[in-house]
Order: sequence, then C-alpha cells, then structure tokens
Amino acid sequence: MTTSKDRVVLAYSGGLDTSVILKWLVLEGYEVVAFLADVGQKEDFAQARDKALALGASGVHVVDCRRELVTDFIFPAFKANALYEGRYLLGTALARPLIARKQIEIAARAGAPYVAHGATGKGNDQVRFELSYYALNPRIKVIAPWKVRRFLDRFQGRPDLLRFAEEHGIPVPATAAKPYSEDDNLLHISHEAGILEDPALEPGEEIFSRTTDPERAPDRPERIAIGFKDGIPIRVENLDDGRVEQDPLVLFLYLNELGSKHGIGRLDMVENRFVGIKSRGIYETPGGTILHVAHQDIEGIAMDREVMRLRNMLASKLSELIYNGFWFSPEMEFLMSAIDKSQEVIDGTVRLKLYRGSVRVTGRESPSSLYDRRLSSMDIEGGFNQQDSEGFIKIHAIRLMAHRAIIERSRNGRTSSGR
Amino acid sequence: MTTSKDRVVLAYSGGLDTSVILKWLVLEGYEVVAFLADVGQKEDFAQARDKALALGASGVHVVDCRRELVTDFIFPAFKANALYEGRYLLGTALARPLIARKQIEIAARAGAPYVAHGATGKGNDQVRFELSYYALNPRIKVIAPWKVRRFLDRFQGRPDLLRFAEEHGIPVPATAAKPYSEDDNLLHISHEAGILEDPALEPGEEIFSRTTDPERAPDRPERIAIGFKDGIPIRVENLDDGRVEQDPLVLFLYLNELGSKHGIGRLDMVENRFVGIKSRGIYETPGGTILHVAHQDIEGIAMDREVMRLRNMLASKLSELIYNGFWFSPEMEFLMSAIDKSQEVIDGTVRLKLYRGSVRVTGRESPSSLYDRRLSSMDIEGGFNQQDSEGFIKIHAIRLMAHRAIIERSRNGRTSSGR
Amino acid sequence: MTTSKDRVVLAYSGGLDTSVILKWLVLEGYEVVAFLADVGQKEDFAQARDKALALGASGVHVVDCRRELVTDFIFPAFKANALYEGRYLLGTALARPLIARKQIEIAARAGAPYVAHGATGKGNDQVRFELSYYALNPRIKVIAPWKVRRFLDRFQGRPDLLRFAEEHGIPVPATAAKPYSEDDNLLHISHEAGILEDPALEPGEEIFSRTTDPERAPDRPERIAIGFKDGIPIRVENLDDGRVEQDPLVLFLYLNELGSKHGIGRLDMVENRFVGIKSRGIYETPGGTILHVAHQDIEGIAMDREVMRLRNMLASKLSELIYNGFWFSPEMEFLMSAIDKSQEVIDGTVRLKLYRGSVRVTGRESPSSLYDRRLSSMDIEGGFNQQDSEGFIKIHAIRLMAHRAIIERSRNGRTSSGR
Amino acid sequence: MTTSKDRVVLAYSGGLDTSVILKWLVLEGYEVVAFLADVGQKEDFAQARDKALALGASGVHVVDCRRELVTDFIFPAFKANALYEGRYLLGTALARPLIARKQIEIAARAGAPYVAHGATGKGNDQVRFELSYYALNPRIKVIAPWKVRRFLDRFQGRPDLLRFAEEHGIPVPATAAKPYSEDDNLLHISHEAGILEDPALEPGEEIFSRTTDPERAPDRPERIAIGFKDGIPIRVENLDDGRVEQDPLVLFLYLNELGSKHGIGRLDMVENRFVGIKSRGIYETPGGTILHVAHQDIEGIAMDREVMRLRNMLASKLSELIYNGFWFSPEMEFLMSAIDKSQEVIDGTVRLKLYRGSVRVTGRESPSSLYDRRLSSMDIEGGFNQQDSEGFIKIHAIRLMAHRAIIERSRNGRTSSGR
Repeated sequence: MTTSKDRVVLAYSGGLDTSVILKWLVLEGYEVVAFLADVGQKEDFAQARDKALALGASGVHVVDCRRELVTDFIFPAFKANALYEGRYLLGTALARPLIARKQIEIAARAGAPYVAHGATGKGNDQVRFELSYYALNPRIKVIAPWKVRRFLDRFQGRPDLLRFAEEHGIPVPATAAKPYSEDDNLLHISHEAGILEDPALEPGEEIFSRTTDPERAPDRPERIAIGFKDGIPIRVENLDDGRVEQDPLVLFLYLNELGSKHGIGRLDMVENRFVGIKSRGIYETPGGTILHVAHQDIEGIAMDREVMRLRNMLASKLSELIYNGFWFSPEMEFLMSAIDKSQEVIDGTVRLKLYRGSVRVTGRESPSSLYDRRLSSMDIEGGFNQQDSEGFIKIHAIRLMAHRAIIERSRNGRTSSGR
Repeated sequence: MTTSKDRVVLAYSGGLDTSVILKWLVLEGYEVVAFLADVGQKEDFAQARDKALALGASGVHVVDCRRELVTDFIFPAFKANALYEGRYLLGTALARPLIARKQIEIAARAGAPYVAHGATGKGNDQVRFELSYYALNPRIKVIAPWKVRRFLDRFQGRPDLLRFAEEHGIPVPATAAKPYSEDDNLLHISHEAGILEDPALEPGEEIFSRTTDPERAPDRPERIAIGFKDGIPIRVENLDDGRVEQDPLVLFLYLNELGSKHGIGRLDMVENRFVGIKSRGIYETPGGTILHVAHQDIEGIAMDREVMRLRNMLASKLSELIYNGFWFSPEMEFLMSAIDKSQEVIDGTVRLKLYRGSVRVTGRESPSSLYDRRLSSMDIEGGFNQQDSEGFIKIHAIRLMAHRAIIERSRNGRTSSGR
Repeated sequence: MTTSKDRVVLAYSGGLDTSVILKWLVLEGYEVVAFLADVGQKEDFAQARDKALALGASGVHVVDCRRELVTDFIFPAFKANALYEGRYLLGTALARPLIARKQIEIAARAGAPYVAHGATGKGNDQVRFELSYYALNPRIKVIAPWKVRRFLDRFQGRPDLLRFAEEHGIPVPATAAKPYSEDDNLLHISHEAGILEDPALEPGEEIFSRTTDPERAPDRPERIAIGFKDGIPIRVENLDDGRVEQDPLVLFLYLNELGSKHGIGRLDMVENRFVGIKSRGIYETPGGTILHVAHQDIEGIAMDREVMRLRNMLASKLSELIYNGFWFSPEMEFLMSAIDKSQEVIDGTVRLKLYRGSVRVTGRESPSSLYDRRLSSMDIEGGFNQQDSEGFIKIHAIRLMAHRAIIERSRNGRTSSGR
Repeated sequence: MTTSKDRVVLAYSGGLDTSVILKWLVLEGYEVVAFLADVGQKEDFAQARDKALALGASGVHVVDCRRELVTDFIFPAFKANALYEGRYLLGTALARPLIARKQIEIAARAGAPYVAHGATGKGNDQVRFELSYYALNPRIKVIAPWKVRRFLDRFQGRPDLLRFAEEHGIPVPATAAKPYSEDDNLLHISHEAGILEDPALEPGEEIFSRTTDPERAPDRPERIAIGFKDGIPIRVENLDDGRVEQDPLVLFLYLNELGSKHGIGRLDMVENRFVGIKSRGIYETPGGTILHVAHQDIEGIAMDREVMRLRNMLASKLSELIYNGFWFSPEMEFLMSAIDKSQEVIDGTVRLKLYRGSVRVTGRESPSSLYDRRLSSMDIEGGFNQQDSEGFIKIHAIRLMAHRAIIERSRNGRTSSGR
C-alpha cells in the first residue's frame, strides 16, 4: 500500500461511537482503515468487519491479540502484583498499549500518517492510546474526534449520535442502550459512567456479565493448583477433576472460566483518574483475581524479605505508570527490568479453594523456598541460636533508649527552668 | 509497695509456659508479680488469678485493656490501612506494645526492677515486648527465660515443661495439647508452629475457632453500613435489622460478631519474621477484615490522589514498624503524625455486603467527597474542558518522544558504524 | 474598587516583556492593574511604577514581599533540605507561589476577574503561576499572552518586541540586551536560555552577578556560627568580628552578603523541566548554600536515624512539588505537616568556615543531641555492651545464609541434572 | 594445605591491635594465617609481613586488591551516586566486603574453619566483615576478639595493649600514638574517635593527611574532563597539560592526585551507625569527590527524568545497605541490577574546574543526550507547541480546584452550623 496523506487507521470496536466516527472521518475526506483488535471481548468480528466496510472503510484489519495480551502485558503486570490504588487489577489499562502498538504497526505498513480512536476527552483511555502512539512513533498524527471542535459541535450528546446513525444507516447495537458504558477484554469487563456515576448506588445484579452472582454460584468449593516458574504461571490443575492446562492463553482462559463460575473478582471502587478527577468503576476480573492471590502467595515463600520490600516500592509506581498510560516509556523499561530480576526464583505451586466469591490459599510449596525447616537445623551449622536474639534486640533498643533519655532530659529541663 | 531488688512483673497468660516460668522464677528466688492483660482473649481470668497465686505470685494484676486496644492501637493502625506484607492485619503485633506499656507501668508502681515474658527466642513477640520495655524505661531489666541458659538447659522440650508442671502441681490447660500454638485477642486469633509449620499442609476446619466455615455460614447475605469520622469508625448499622452501635469497643465487638458469623477474615500465609526467618501463619480477623475493606473504600472517595500516594509509601513502612515491635519509637511518632494529618477529611459512610467468607462494598457517600458530579459542572466555572486533555497528553509525550528519538538515533548510529 | 469585567492584575516586572504585555493588554481593551512584587530583586521600583502608569496601567501595587519570602517559603523549604534533582536550591520556584498569592489577593480586592503573567509556554514558571492561581481561586481567569494566538502571531521574536516598544515609547532596559535571561530574588539569581542553552559552553565570568569569582574572593577564610531552633535559623554570628543577626530577613540578607563575598553557591546543571524537556541553568545562591549545609549538619546530630530516612523519602518528593508548582496543594500541606513534625528537636549551633567558593562545617553542638558521649555510660545503666553486637550480627546474617544455601542448592541441582 | 581445625585466617593490618590479636590467637593455641589486603593504604607491606611472621603467623598472604576495589566496588557504588545520609561517600564501607571476600577465599584454600578480625564491638566494621563472611560461607566460624570475654578481660584499655606489646616484643607503630583512629584506602582516609569524639571540636590541620589545606592549595585552578561510558569513568584528561589516563586504577589514582593537590573532598559530619549510635567522622575523599560531582552531572544530561526519580529512591536504600554491611545480599544484587539498567545510556564527557577545596562543573556533552536543541525543532515534527501547556496546566489544576472547593464548602458549612 502506498502512503496517502489522508489515510487514517482507526481503532474500531464495532460499537456506536466508533461507527459514527468512522463515517464522520469518511465524510471529512479521510481514507479510513479500520482496525479491530480481538483482545478477548465478546464481539462478532465478521459482522463488525462487514459493518466497517459498509460505512466506507477502505480496508479492515481484524487481529487476534489475545495471546500477546496474556504473555506480554497481563503476565508481566501480575509478576509485579500490580494493583492500582491497592485494588484495581488494571484490566482496561493493560489492553490499551497493545492495541496502540498494533495500530501504529498497521499505520506504518499502510503508509498512513494518521491514527484515530474513539475515547473521550475526560478519561484515561485517550491518554493511554495517545501516549503509546507518540512513544512508538513521534511523527504520528492523532485524530481524537471527542477533542475536535467540529466533531464536538455536531455531537453534543447521545441523541446526536443516534440521529447520525439513523441518517447514515448505521446499525445501533443493543449494548448502546445500556445506561452505562463497558470495556471488555480477556482480563476483565468494566462498567462505569451513566447511572453508575452515583457512588452510593448499589449496582443491580443485571449489570454483572462475567461472573456468576456469588449467591448462585456452586455450593461446593473447587480446588485448584497453580504452578509458577520465574513468577509466570505455567500450569493450572483442577485438583477435583484432574484437568491440567499449560499453554499461557489456554490456562488463563481456564482461570477465567473457574473464576466466573464461582463469582470471583467483583470490585466496586472510586478511583483517581490521571486527568485529576475521581471516577467510580465496577469491575469483574475472575481469572486475574485468582492469579493475583496465587502469585502473591508464592512470593511469600520464595522471595527474600528485603527484595520484597524494595520490589513493593517499585510495584506501586509501576501500577500508576500502567494506569496512566506510560507502558512504552523509559521508566517502565527500567521498572520491568527490576521486576524481572525479582522473579528469578519465584517458582513453585500454590493450592487454592474457590467458593462463592472468594479465593483462599490452602497451601504452597517451592523448590527455591527460603522457608525450609531443615535449613536452620542441618544445612547451616548451628542453626538459629535463641540467645543471639538478646543482643539483636538490645542493639536495636539503643536508639530508642537514647530517644527516651532526650525526652526525659527535655522534660526535666522544662520543669527546672520553670522554677 | 516498696522497691524490692528481686521483684519481677511477669506478663502472665494462665497457660502452660508462663505458669512454668512463674514457678521457675519463684524457685530462682524472685518475688513475682503476675500481670494478666485482658485484650479480649478467651480466658477465665478469675481462675488464672487463683492459679498464679497458687504458684507463688506475691500479687496478681488483671487489667481490662480492651477499650485501649481498640482506640489506641487498632483504630490508629487501620487509619493507615496497615497490612504487613500486603496481607496480614497485624493482630498479634498490635496487642504487644499495649501489654508491655501496662507491664512497665505496673513495674514502676510496684517498685520492680525486672519485667519478664514467656516469648521464645525465635519469634517476633520477644522483640515487640522487649523493644517496648526498653523504649518506655531504658533502666528496666528484662528476664526472658527462653533466652536464659539455666532455663534452656532445664527445659529442652515440651516433655520437660509437662514434667515440671506435674512435679509442682501446675494444672495443664487443654489448649496445651494442641499440636500448634495460638495467640488470641480482640482483633484476631493466630495459629502457627507445630504441625502448621509445613507450608503445604492444608489446615483442617477444626483449627479455626473465630470464624464459621464459609461453607456453613448463612446462605443469606447481610448488609451493613460503617460511618467514619477522621478515618475512625464511629457507627456501625445493620441495614437488615436496624441495629446500630456507636461506642468504639462495642462497635468493634459487633463487627467481630458479624465477621465471625459470615466466615470472614481467614488468611493463610508465609511471612517474614523480623529475626530473618520465614514463618507460616494462619489468621482469623473477622471484624478487622470488614473494617479494613470499608476504610480503604471511604478513602477512595474522600482522599486526594497525591496525598494517597504519599500516605501509601508511609503506610508500608508503618506496617513493618508495627510488625517489628517499634510502636514506641521516634519514627512511629513521626509516621503517626502524618497519618493523622491524612485522615482529617476521611468522613462518610460505606455500605457492605457480608456473605460466606467475602465482604464486598456496594456503595459509599462522603460529605468531604472529592467525587462530586456537580463540582465539575457548576461549582467551578467552566468545569472540565475536554480539549485541554490534548495539551495535557502532548506535553506528557514530549519526554517519551525524545526517548524514542535517542533510541532511533542510536540504532541508526549502530547501523552506520557497522558498515 | 468595584468589580470590572475587563480588569486584569498583571504580574509586572518592569522589564521588556511585561511592559509590552501591559501595553498590549491595554490595547486589547483591558483595564490593567500592575503588580510589582519586591522579592529582593535588583530593581528601581519607583521608576518601574512610573513606567507602568505611563504605559496605561490604571493602578500599580508595589509590595515588599521579602520578609514573607524568607519566613513562609525559604525557611520551610530549607527545613526539608529541599534540593531539586540533588542539586538545585529552588530559588525561582520558591518565589513564584508567593507572587501568585499576592496577585490573587490584589485581584480579589480589586474586583478583577483576570490575572496575567509574562512567563513563556515552554518553562516552569507558567505552571507555577497558573497552578497557584487556580488552587487559590478556582474561578480566576488567566491571561498568559505567550500562549495566546493573537499575541503569538504579533510577537514572533525579540525584534517584534523591540519594534513594538519603540512604537509605543516603551523604554528598553539594558538587561534586555543580555544574550540570555535571568531571574532574580533574595534567594538566588538564575541565568539561562540564549547562549547558555549550549550545555557544553563554559559560562564566562561576566555572567555571574551575585557572587565574587572564587579566585578573587578574600584569601582569608571567615568563620561563622548559625543557631537553629525547630530547624529554623534564629541566629547568625560572625566568629571573627562578633557581628550577630537574629531577625529572619536580616540574618538571611547577611548570609547572602557573606556567601557573595566568598564566592559561594555557584551551580551549573542540566535539569528536567516539568513540561518534559531538559534545560541548562546557571545559579548563584550564596546565602542559601551556606544555610543548606548548616541545616543538614545540625540534623546529623539532633535527628533520629529512622526519622531521617523517612523524612528524606518525603523531601525528594517535596522538592519536585515545589519545582513543579504545587506549593498550594493538598499533598504539600500533607508533606509540610510531616516536615514540621521532623523538626521539633532540630536545635543547636553549627560552626562553618567560608573560603573561596566552599563552605565547610567545622563543628556543631545541640541541646537535643542524640550524640551524647555520657549517654551510653551514665544516663542509661550498662550502656553499650559490645557482646550484644554478636547476636545482632548473627540474627541479621540468618537471611543471608539462607539465601546462600538456596544458591548452593540450586547450583548443585544444576550440576547433578547436568550429568 | 590440609584442613586444620585450629587454623584461623586473620585480617591483619600491621598495626597495634591486629598485631596483639595475632599474638593472642597464637597463645590461645590457634594456627594463624595472616592476610594483608593492599587496598591502597599507606603501609610498608614487606615490613608488615616480617612482623606477622615474627609474631608467630604460620603464613602471610599479601594481596594487591586495589584494582578490584576500583572496578568491583567503587565504580558500581558511584554509578548509583551512593551517598550515606546525603554526604558520606562510603570510603571504609566499600573496602570491607572486598577484604572479607578475599579472606573467605584464603580460608577456603587454606582449609581454615575460622576467620578473625580486629574491629571493635561498637562500630560498623565488625558488621561489614561478619555479614560478608556469613553471606559468603554460612559455615564459617568467626573470632572477633573485641567481643570475646577472655580477650576483653585481659585488654581493658590501650595501656593493656601497649604492655602486652612490650612483653611480647611487638613493635608499636607511630600511628598508635595518634589520639584518634584512622582507616585508609584508595578511596579515602577517615579520622574518628578519641579527641574527635567531641562533635564541637574543630579538627586541627595536622589531622588531615590526604588533602592539601585548601588555603595552601595552588592559586591557579586546574581544568579536567572526565569521560563516561555506561556510567563508568573511562577517561580523565587534564585540559591544562594534556595528560590522559584511561586505565580504571590509574585514572582513579590520578583523580586522587588532583583532588589531593587542590584540597578537595574534606568532610566533617555526625552520622548514624548501624548499631544505633551516632558517631562523628572526618573524611578525606579527594578523587571520589571529583568523580561523584562529574557522574551526577553527566546523568543530568543523559538520564530520563522519571528513571532518575526511581533510581534515586533506590540509591538511598543502596547507600544504607553498603554502609550497613549488606554488600553480599539478595537485595544488593536486586538493586545493582536496577542501577546497571539505569546506566545503559550514561555516556559523555563532563568538564570540571578544581580550585582550593571546590570542584565545579563548567560544561558537559553526551552522545545520548536527551538535551538536544535540535530535537524539539527538527527531528520531531511540530516540536513543542506552547499552547499545549495551557491544557497541561488546566488538567493538572482540576484536582487542586476540587480541593479548594471542598475547603470552601467545609468553611461555609462550619459558618452556617455555627449559627
């Protein structure tokens, strides 16, 4: 394909917004190449392809990115126990840089000077897309219609979108009727905005689509074991029925299936967006929640205490970077190099029990365990001498005793000078 | 009471170890004052008092410390979301400095130059007791029999303790027969050592004593609301039956009752002791787990993002300090002052659903909420201008683009120098 | 003064840029109130006042902010040892929020809906001004001509400014001829941009205006003592001639005089601007450099080790906040509260020697010193028992020994599996 | 050499203390192998060897460790800008693990189950030696006479050492007469204890032995350039006389020569020892001080801002680890891996001016410079758009405005409820 100065690669989802954007771009005179990333969302890709072509796309690329999402984004983040603000497993944030990277690759191959996306100007996704675009190709030009005056003037609300869709024969998907918005991929589905903006409103059961209501989940717990090598899950075994999965994508899909069945991974929180406003989100992350619990546990037995302290300092920073859209950045490369180092001995197996919304660890073992009952008694001569603790404590107390002496001296000083 | 150079105040539990120690101290020629702290553990204090006197204690002090434990130790730690190694709610660690402080006060009033405790030389509790003793009274002398050569020579194992008990008519409590050890207070009960030392062994249901088996917990969820003021819970309301509790001690006991009933707060983990060895612990923290989830959530809506980032850096350090026994230290005073500052606007109410082992937030509201839908549109003129985001992102991208340019320059450099 | 919808309070310096801006605003139809902050810069304020009036200002406020700069901005930052990127004492960054605060106060009293400043769109100062404006009055409207299209179209370079000045009879100050730009206040003078943009270019001696060339400074060192109370300097004594200053402003001016005379406080560095670009700056901070060295030293003797570690974590973050313009922010309030707590016992006196560009500590004493030779021997019974160190070290070694055992086990494993 | 159960490898310095210890060990029945590490200290090694043999050593190993000290310890630490408590360049701390490693190697080859050292029980060096020993060989047995009861009983003070020396014909070196103690290696010489324990006492000029008195240093500045590759100095050029050094050891010795001549690197501070007491030290670090200044400066131009922030968090922790003796530890490996990553592009040349106690940067250039004036204008299309800054600032202000609104709302609330 030759370079065209009007060609734009649009991150197309098949939904109402990006369909309107596709058509609008065509009407504005652009040649639009639609890019549909399959990151595991529920979508009829063939139908979406046809729709894009019908709307005037000059080409459509549907790319299965699911394996890459698991191996290059989800697993690395879970190696770091990345949790945004202590709770959110970064479901949306992890898929965005992958989509952006593919889109930039397609634009390069297509000779397109432009990329476009349908994220709004108040959210995180615009940042994640655009920082990734610019980081990967500083010469790229970005069209973000929700920040373009002409587009904003024309589409001031949902009714304008629907009217435009009708005018141009754009089929409106059923999901467009939901009074809130969703983002869906292998790792999670999020529900936010609309009626969910009221942080006090309890979400009804109809909102959840990835996880069984814990109250309707099976009344028998299910036991599984997850094996890790270098901090990466390499094996999931169902201890009840013996099923074993070892392929990264397949084992992650299996964890999703298990978590979904047992109502695991629901979260309702108010979080801080990068653009400085607070936002209420409801998330369902079934397999990811199980994996997070298991990984944290295997580290408990295999990771040195002080390495863990240092890694944790980095992990909270890393979670912010992922959330804020800095996946492709020098600081991310720096942190990931350190995380990789920390996982060199994170090997072993964790056993878990899944039951009605909760996942509990019931045991673990590790070949590189630093928890070896024999270690203190046999391998190292002499082992642990309890009397050493006396000196250990006394030396640690020196500083505290000096502090107390200062306090008392200062108190006495005040008393005597008070005479 | 006059000062006596042989008087020792012993932290007495009524159990086998401290009973043997009491008697041994008497035989060694000390005058022993027994101190029983009621921190909410299951214990017959009247019977323990009689036992201490029968063993030769010159006096017994039973002190109800439960309210102080809640207001001066548990609530401050929960204000910081203190979690050791990301998981443990510090149940044992929070009671130790309180017991030590009372013991030092009793020693001062009793004119006793010595304090004694029954913690072993391999654990954390010896450190927590002794650092607290020394910090509060640098002149105190500590007798820790499990680090005293004469004692260690005589008591080389459990059989020696039992034999000594039999010889001296010390009644052996039923709990002494358990093949693992426990620590019990208002906040939690821990189970560790003995058969539980094998980190792969799944603990049987008979081990748990504070929480209903989630599989046998009620099949109907229960809904509650917790109200906070300055980060402290001031009100618990049962939304199903209308019961309301507002007294700190009573509301915490009520949270325990609720958590216990619904099987909430079980944890099985391998953790890192201060003395450098790993240890497997099983914890039940019913009310504390509910409180932790609720406090974290109210912060989500009421705390500034950047204050939260900074506070979190401090909170992980604070958790270590509590775990390691540095409650009474200059750095703890420093951190607590910062934590208090961070909680000035942490007000509001969180609604939760308790069900078979899990506690889920279903909504929250706050008078000091930074999440005010009207804020962006009305109070602040102009509100949020989506087009501002374009500049925001572009400026953030400058650094990433420069980094990319360097990479490309260096790649091209390499290519050309490769000629 | 009544509110006027066209009234704007301009941060006016008397220099070329803000004079042009003043006139331009008048021509654009605004009623301009000029605000001249005296933050210690070299300036003829009477002449600047006349100039502003001559250019059409409806009013001029000259405010002596020097004392406030010292007590409310410089001293608090020096309590934290704030150093941006390990080197820069934040001279410009500390004056900006003060100027912005005064300007907002004047705008409120003047009933002006607008404020304006002359900082460019590529630097830090625009951010420091505007974030302060918005934080203090979210309803304020900001005019930043260097980001206004109409202004930028008219003034595309220095020649346009000079031509406009000539056309409108604006006197051009001599400093406008310098081939680089400067910012001047009590704390420092900076030199940057223009010919100094080449980071390899050694600045000629003619660039420096606040400090004597170290090679021409007096050949005899001068000795001084600085007394601190709660981390704040309360006394400067010249140990050679006996001069003593105790007033905050006067003592700081005296430190400047001393530093200037001895060629102290020159710095040449490449730093990272908030807007993501690197920038080369040359700074002269005579008195501040002396104060920084002295304060760091008094903390060495009076501050607890662990409090220092924690405070240092916060201090680097605080330096970034100051540099980036977040003086008026919730996170700054949070950090400053912690810094204040850390300074409660930072009392005492440091003696220093000033000589040809260097400032060296030669001794210190503190009433709250944690370094008390008597402490270990007398106040605390028993003092330091060297044999305790054995246990201290052995317990600390446990973890390292376990790590080594793992390494060896894994090596042997590899060897045997290699057969 | 066969294993002998009484063989001990002693870290021998040739000084009074280790000579007495050598003899005492022999008298106690040990076979003593003396190990003299040449780490660049001023010492007559041949004479020390003879002395050790005369005192009864069964063997003497003199090992030139200078190159390893520079490449394996000094350069790695300087890559991290390691500064203990913001000031100390870790001169002693960096040599100890090297000495310990050689000693453990010699013990392994000699079949010696014991190692011994002459460090006291109150200082840092005992910890650095012993943690290194245990980390490298968990089965090693350590004899630290200054913590052995029999030794302490016999040698209660300096007179006892001198009497013993006289009785056993041990020559007493002149340095033993100094009223303070010293530690000397390539990187620095320290002076502490004795008369220097008084933190207020100004050290006399006679104490300094590594650096010229700045007041007597040459009256002409000297200009040099230091070239870096991956954060390591690879070239020192004297810009005045053209001398160039490129060998790691030789260039470091040359930096020492230059620093020494110009009176650079003197430091007087009160620091916090690992064992919890404060200590006053006086250091001379001539070449290291120059190198530190230069390395920090080259990072300014070549390191990404956010990588620098993260690295700095790690660097302060790394400095503590080095100071406290944890060179051989899992956390040190973790940190060093991250530091190495951060240095991948730290290339370029810094020019400096050395003059009477001060070292000042006068310019720098870097092939991987992120400070490229052309970057913004040419390489990246569009460059920096000043108007983007408006959105950048406004978005950053959102959070501050919300905070202000809360404050105002709460103020108004208080007012109205005050009625």
